[in-house]
Amino acid sequence: MSHNTFGHLFRVTTFGESHGPALGCVIDGCPPLIPIHEAEIQLELDRRRPGQSRFTTQRQEPDKVRILSGVFTDEKTGKQVTTGTPIALLIENVDQRSKDYSEIKESYRPGHADIAYDMKYGIRDYRGGGRSSARETAARVAAGAIARKVLPDVKIRAALVQIGPHKINRDNWDWAEVGNNALFCPDASSVSFLEDYLDGIRKAGSSIGAVVEVVAEGVPPGLGAPIYGKLDSELASSLMSINAVKGVEIGAGFASAELTGEENADEMYASNAGHPAFSSNHAGGVLGGISTGQPLVCRFAVKPTSSILQLRHSVTREGKETEVRTKGRHDPCVGIRAVPIAEAMVACVLADQFLRHRGQVGEIRHWPFNP
Amino acid sequence: MSHNTFGHLFRVTTFGESHGPALGCVIDGCPPLIPIHEAEIQLELDRRRPGQSRFTTQRQEPDKVRILSGVFTDEKTGKQVTTGTPIALLIENVDQRSKDYSEIKESYRPGHADIAYDMKYGIRDYRGGGRSSARETAARVAAGAIARKVLPDVKIRAALVQIGPHKINRDNWDWAEVGNNALFCPDASSVSFLEDYLDGIRKAGSSIGAVVEVVAEGVPPGLGAPIYGKLDSELASSLMSINAVKGVEIGAGFASAELTGEENADEMYASNAGHPAFSSNHAGGVLGGISTGQPLVCRFAVKPTSSILQLRHSVTREGKETEVRTKGRHDPCVGIRAVPIAEAMVACVLADQFLRHRGQVGEIRHWPFNP
Amino acid sequence: MSHNTFGHLFRVTTFGESHGPALGCVIDGCPPLIPIHEAEIQLELDRRRPGQSRFTTQRQEPDKVRILSGVFTDEKTGKQVTTGTPIALLIENVDQRSKDYSEIKESYRPGHADIAYDMKYGIRDYRGGGRSSARETAARVAAGAIARKVLPDVKIRAALVQIGPHKINRDNWDWAEVGNNALFCPDASSVSFLEDYLDGIRKAGSSIGAVVEVVAEGVPPGLGAPIYGKLDSELASSLMSINAVKGVEIGAGFASAELTGEENADEMYASNAGHPAFSSNHAGGVLGGISTGQPLVCRFAVKPTSSILQLRHSVTREGKETEVRTKGRHDPCVGIRAVPIAEAMVACVLADQFLRHRGQVGEIRHWPFNP
Amino acid sequence: MSHNTFGHLFRVTTFGESHGPALGCVIDGCPPLIPIHEAEIQLELDRRRPGQSRFTTQRQEPDKVRILSGVFTDEKTGKQVTTGTPIALLIENVDQRSKDYSEIKESYRPGHADIAYDMKYGIRDYRGGGRSSARETAARVAAGAIARKVLPDVKIRAALVQIGPHKINRDNWDWAEVGNNALFCPDASSVSFLEDYLDGIRKAGSSIGAVVEVVAEGVPPGLGAPIYGKLDSELASSLMSINAVKGVEIGAGFASAELTGEENADEMYASNAGHPAFSSNHAGGVLGGISTGQPLVCRFAVKPTSSILQLRHSVTREGKETEVRTKGRHDPCVGIRAVPIAEAMVACVLADQFLRHRGQVGEIRHWPFNP
Repeated sequence: MSHNTFGHLFRVTTFGESHGPALGCVIDGCPPLIPIHEAEIQLELDRRRPGQSRFTTQRQEPDKVRILSGVFTDEKTGKQVTTGTPIALLIENVDQRSKDYSEIKESYRPGHADIAYDMKYGIRDYRGGGRSSARETAARVAAGAIARKVLPDVKIRAALVQIGPHKINRDNWDWAEVGNNALFCPDASSVSFLEDYLDGIRKAGSSIGAVVEVVAEGVPPGLGAPIYGKLDSELASSLMSINAVKGVEIGAGFASAELTGEENADEMYASNAGHPAFSSNHAGGVLGGISTGQPLVCRFAVKPTSSILQLRHSVTREGKETEVRTKGRHDPCVGIRAVPIAEAMVACVLADQFLRHRGQVGEIRHWPFNP
Repeated sequence: MSHNTFGHLFRVTTFGESHGPALGCVIDGCPPLIPIHEAEIQLELDRRRPGQSRFTTQRQEPDKVRILSGVFTDEKTGKQVTTGTPIALLIENVDQRSKDYSEIKESYRPGHADIAYDMKYGIRDYRGGGRSSARETAARVAAGAIARKVLPDVKIRAALVQIGPHKINRDNWDWAEVGNNALFCPDASSVSFLEDYLDGIRKAGSSIGAVVEVVAEGVPPGLGAPIYGKLDSELASSLMSINAVKGVEIGAGFASAELTGEENADEMYASNAGHPAFSSNHAGGVLGGISTGQPLVCRFAVKPTSSILQLRHSVTREGKETEVRTKGRHDPCVGIRAVPIAEAMVACVLADQFLRHRGQVGEIRHWPFNP
Repeated sequence: MSHNTFGHLFRVTTFGESHGPALGCVIDGCPPLIPIHEAEIQLELDRRRPGQSRFTTQRQEPDKVRILSGVFTDEKTGKQVTTGTPIALLIENVDQRSKDYSEIKESYRPGHADIAYDMKYGIRDYRGGGRSSARETAARVAAGAIARKVLPDVKIRAALVQIGPHKINRDNWDWAEVGNNALFCPDASSVSFLEDYLDGIRKAGSSIGAVVEVVAEGVPPGLGAPIYGKLDSELASSLMSINAVKGVEIGAGFASAELTGEENADEMYASNAGHPAFSSNHAGGVLGGISTGQPLVCRFAVKPTSSILQLRHSVTREGKETEVRTKGRHDPCVGIRAVPIAEAMVACVLADQFLRHRGQVGEIRHWPFNP
Repeated sequence: MSHNTFGHLFRVTTFGESHGPALGCVIDGCPPLIPIHEAEIQLELDRRRPGQSRFTTQRQEPDKVRILSGVFTDEKTGKQVTTGTPIALLIENVDQRSKDYSEIKESYRPGHADIAYDMKYGIRDYRGGGRSSARETAARVAAGAIARKVLPDVKIRAALVQIGPHKINRDNWDWAEVGNNALFCPDASSVSFLEDYLDGIRKAGSSIGAVVEVVAEGVPPGLGAPIYGKLDSELASSLMSINAVKGVEIGAGFASAELTGEENADEMYASNAGHPAFSSNHAGGVLGGISTGQPLVCRFAVKPTSSILQLRHSVTREGKETEVRTKGRHDPCVGIRAVPIAEAMVACVLADQFLRHRGQVGEIRHWPFNP
C-alpha cells in the first residue's frame, strides 16, 4: 500500500494531525472472533503517552481510545470480540495548547519536516508539526495492541540500548527493568547515569539521539514473503517510517560487514522445537527474508529531536534567511517514546505476514520435514 | 505491494530461478514516449554480470536481455520508445552447470535461505539457491535501467566503501574511479590493498562482508509519500530486499544517535536552486520522509556469502545433524555485485515516487514559495 | 485494493456498522489545496439521508458529518482547503432504535447477507444488518463529495429510470426534475404513477427492484488504466459493490449483444472539442477501457429489499427450518437511495483514474494529435 | 491492484502485444505443492485458440506455452509442482502476418480502442490492435488453468447463450454439448441455426454481439471480501475487463429489477451440504458479496467486433474526416472466444478470494453453526 496505509491483509490506515480535533486509525482485515477490549488498547497507549516524565514532552494528553466499529459481543463467552469488519479507533486531541505559531509558520526548523511538507503539498498544518508530529504514532500503538492478539504466543518487547554515545551494559539486560524506569532501559545500573546525562541535555535546551532494540520471541518459522515482501524488508520499512529514525539493522546488522562467512553464519543443531537450534543469532531470526524460529532482533537509530531551544540558522517561506529557536513542549530524546511504537510496528508486520502466509501456504510447517 | 512486485505506479514484478530456463521482469506503469533500447539495458546488466573478475562467481552468463513488449517505433524520431503498456524483459539462463546437488539437497547451508524456503513452502528448487539466488537481481538491474530514464536528470551512483574491517579513505573519493576497478571502489589508493585482502579471503575458502553507499543527485524536492510510503522508508525496504543485506541507513544514519540536536540538524541558507542551501547533509536528503533537493545518501551492510568452502555444522531435512562444505562458484564478497543492484533499486524507488507525486500533487514545487 | 478500501491514488476506506456508535471514512491521496467545507459534504449526505419520504426507511438519522483531519486554512484565501494528508470523516449514529433482534439473531432473512456473514466470519453484528447495512453508504456519499472537487468540470448525475416493470419515458428526461421528487425520477410525467405503484408495494409489506442510470459529462479523454484497471471495469466493480446491485452495464450494455458491428460502433466526425464528435454513444464513453470524451453512461439493476413483512421460509443458525417476517424500518425500493450513492462511486472512480493518469502519463492529450 | 495486474494473493500480471515477439504472464502468490504441467495449460489454451473454425479469426497461432519459473519436481511423487515462487508463462507470437497497416495507422476504427490508446498515451502499437487485441487474453487463459488447480473441487464452465437476437433454448441445456460445436453452445438443437446465422453475418462483412453465461459449482461458502472486494464486485470487474464486454449480471441480474421482494429472495431449507438448500437461485450464489454455497451464476454481454469490412465514417490522427474499412482476419462474433476466457477470469477470482479468506479467517465454515 502507500501513503497512510500499511500492511496487506492486516492493514492499518491512520489519520490525524497534532492539533486537529482527533487522530485515529482503521484496522482492516483483522481476523474475526479475537477478544479485544478498549482497556487493553489503553494499556499500550499509556506506555507511549507524553507527559509522564521530565524526559518526554510535557503536553498532557489522556490519549483515551474509543472503538467505533468492528467488534461485537460473542454469545458464547459474553466477551467483546472482533467481527472481521474494519475496526476504527478514535483518540480525541485535548491539550492542543493555543500558542503563538507565528515563528514556525513562516520559518522552517532545521532538521524538521516543516519545509518538506511545504515543498510537497504547498500547504501544511504547522501547529505542532501537523501530520508529521509524533502524535500520529498514538494510532500505531493502538493498532499494535490489536495486532499482538493475532499472534498471541509471540512476545514482542523493545528497549532503549543507547542514548547519545552511551550504550547500556548488555550483560545487565533484564526485560523486567524496562517498565521500572522512564527510559525503557533494560540495564538498571545505567539508568541514573543516563537520566543525569539527559537532564544535562534538557537543561541545555538541546536534544540527543538514541538506539532502540526490538526482540520478538516465538515467531513461527516461515513468515516472510520473498522477494519484495521479505520479513526483514518490511521491518526495515516500518521502523524507518517512525519519526526521526535514520537507520535500521537486523541481527548482526552493520557489524556483519566486518565478519567472515564462518564467523557470521549461524550453525544449526538438532532440536525438537519445530526448527533447528542455532549456535548464535547473527541472522536476527531471518534468512532469505523468511523467519527461522529464532528470536527476531532489530535495532534502529533515532536522530535527536529537531525542535530545540538553541538558536539555529534557517530560511523563511519567502526565501529570506532567518534564525529559529523552538520554544514549546518537546522531547529531549524522542528515541525514548519510540520504544512502544517500535513494538507496535513489529506486531503489525508480524500479524500481516502471518495472515499472508496462512493465505498463500496454509499451516506453519515444522522441521524436521521428513522425520 | 508484496511478494514479487515492488512499486505502486512504476511497478516491477520479477520471476525466475537460478537454474531454471530464464528469468526476467515485467515493468508496469512506465510513462509512454520514453526512448529505450536493449543496448542501454544491456550496459547496466554488464556491470552486474558475474564472471568478470576473480572476485565474483565464475559462472559465465551473458545475461543477454530481450524486450518482449511495451515498446514501439516513434514516428517522429524513428527511435524505439515506451508505449505505456507493460514492458517485459527476458534473460535466458545459459550456464546452469549440471552438477551434483546431492549435498545441499538434503542438508542446509548455515546462514543461507535453504532451510527458510523449506520452512515456508515445503519445497524448494535447491539448484544454485533457486529463487533466493542473487541471479534474481539481474531482473532488477534491467528494470533499473528503464527507471533511470523516467528521471533523466537524476544521477544515481553507488560505490563500495568498506570490505570487512577496511573502510576506504573518503578523502580520495572519485566517482570516476568506480568503473576502473573490479570492486566498484571510488578510492583508487585502496584498491590494491583491498584486492590482496580479498584474495586472501578467497584462497581461504571463506567470504567477507561489505558496506555500499548510494548517492542520488538532482532528486527533485517533494518526493515521498508520508506516512507509510516515506521516501526513506521505501529506500530501506528496497535495499533490505537485496540478498544478504542486514542494515540500511540514511544520511548520518546510526551515527545520528550520538549527535545532539544542534550537531545533527542541517542549517538552511538562501539559494536559487529551488530549495535552500544546507550547511551539511546529516539528513541524507530526506526530512519527514520527503526529499529536500539535497543529495540522497544511503548506506547498507552486506553480510558475507554463506556458501563457503569451510566445513560447517548443520542439519538435514530429516532432522539429523551433519556437516556442510559448499563447493561451487560463489562470490567471496557478495557486496561487490550489490553496487549496481543498489543503484537500480534506488532508481526504481525514485521513479515510482516521482510518478506518485505527479499523480497526487502535480508539478514539483520550488522554494521560495512566496517570493 | 481490497476489503474496505477502494481506489489507488484517491483511496477511500470506510468503517462502521448500522447500530454501532459511528461510521465514517478516511480519504487518502486527495490532492492538496482543494477548497472543501463540511457544508458541501452535508449537502450530498442530505440527498441520501433516510426518513425524508414514505418511500425510504423511516429511521431518523441527521447524518451530521464532521471533518477530523486533512484540512487547514489557506492563508491566501482564508478558505479551508485540503492539505494532502488523510481526510477523516465521522458520522455518529443517533437513531439506533433499541428493538428486539431475537428473530433475526437466530434466523436468516432470505435474500439477505445475514447468513453469508455468519458463513464467512462465524459472527456478525445482526443489529440492523451490521456492516452489510446500507448505512455504510453514507460514508461513500461523503467521500464522493470530496471526489467531485478533484474534477470540478465533470458533471456527475444519476436518476431512477425503472421501478419494477415500469420504465420512465426517456423522451421526457429532464435532469432538473430529479431534485423535484422523492424518487430521483427525471420524467415528471411518470412520478405520480410510480409513487402510487410504490405505495401499493409498501402497503403490501413487499418491496420492488429498480434500475438507476448514471451519466458523467465532461470526462477528460484518456482516463482508464488498461488492461485490468479499465475505466468500465472499475465502474462495474464500484457499482456492483453497492448493496443489492445485481447487474451493471455501460452504454448500450446488454442491448449491444443484439447489434451488428455497423449498428453498434459509434462513427466519428471532425470536432474542435479535443476529441472527435460521435454519431451515437453505444460505447457509453469508453473504448478499450479508456474514456473518449463522450458522456460516460452506466446503468445498474437493484434487487428488491430482502427485509419484507411477508412471511418467508428460512433456517436458523442451529440448522432448523423456520419462518421469518422482518418488521422494522426498511426501504420499499432500496434502488431509490442508490441514486446519490452511485454518483458518489462514479465520482471516486473518476477522481482516482484522473490522478493515476496524471501520475503515469501527465497532462490530458487532445485530438487531433498531429494537426 | 491496477493496470496489468489483477488479484491480491493470487496475482496475475500479463504483458504482450498482438504483433510483438511474445505475450505471457507472471502468476504470483500461487500456493506451493500444486501439481501443474504445461500440457494442462495447453489444453485450456487450445480451447481459446484462433483459427479453429470459420467463426473465429483465421490467424494461425499455435499458442504454445512454456513455463519459465516457479515449478520443480516433487521428490515424493516425481511430479512437477509449484514452489510458491512466481510462475512465468511465455507464449511466442508466430503468425504476425506482415501486412499493410497504413490504413489504421492514421485512421481510427469506429468502436475500437484505436483512438483511446492514442488519447491516453500519445502513441500505440497499431499492428493488430497492439495491447488492446484479444490476443492478450491467451495469457489470462493460461493463468486460469493454474487457478483452477487452487480450488480443484470447484467446477467452472461457461457457454454461449445468445448470438445477436437469438437466445438458446435453456430447456435443452447440456454441458456436454459445449465441447461439441465451435460456438460453445450448450443447446445442440440451436447450433445449426446459429451457425447459419453467423455465416450470414460473416459473409456480409459484418459482426454480431453475444451473451455468455458462466457457472461455478462447488464454490465453498464464505468467499468474498466485503465491502469493496465483494465476490460479485470482483467478478463484475474481471468480466468487464474482457475485450468488448459491455454488461455483467449476477444471478437474476437485470431481471431482478422487475421482481418483488418475495419473488426475488431465495428461501432456505434444511440440508446437510454445509449450507442451506435454496428454493431458487436469483442471488446467483452471492449474498452481501459473499458466496453461499449455491452455484455462482454470471452472464455478460459482448458487443460486436468493431473491425468489419463495411465502410465506416471516421477521423484521422491529423483531425481529418475519412472512411475506414477493416480488412484482416477478425472474429465475426468475438463473444464466442470469450467463453474460455470468462472461465479463466472466474477461476482466478475464486482462487484469489479463497486464499484471501484463508488468510484473514482460516478454514471454511459450514452451516449449521450451532448444531
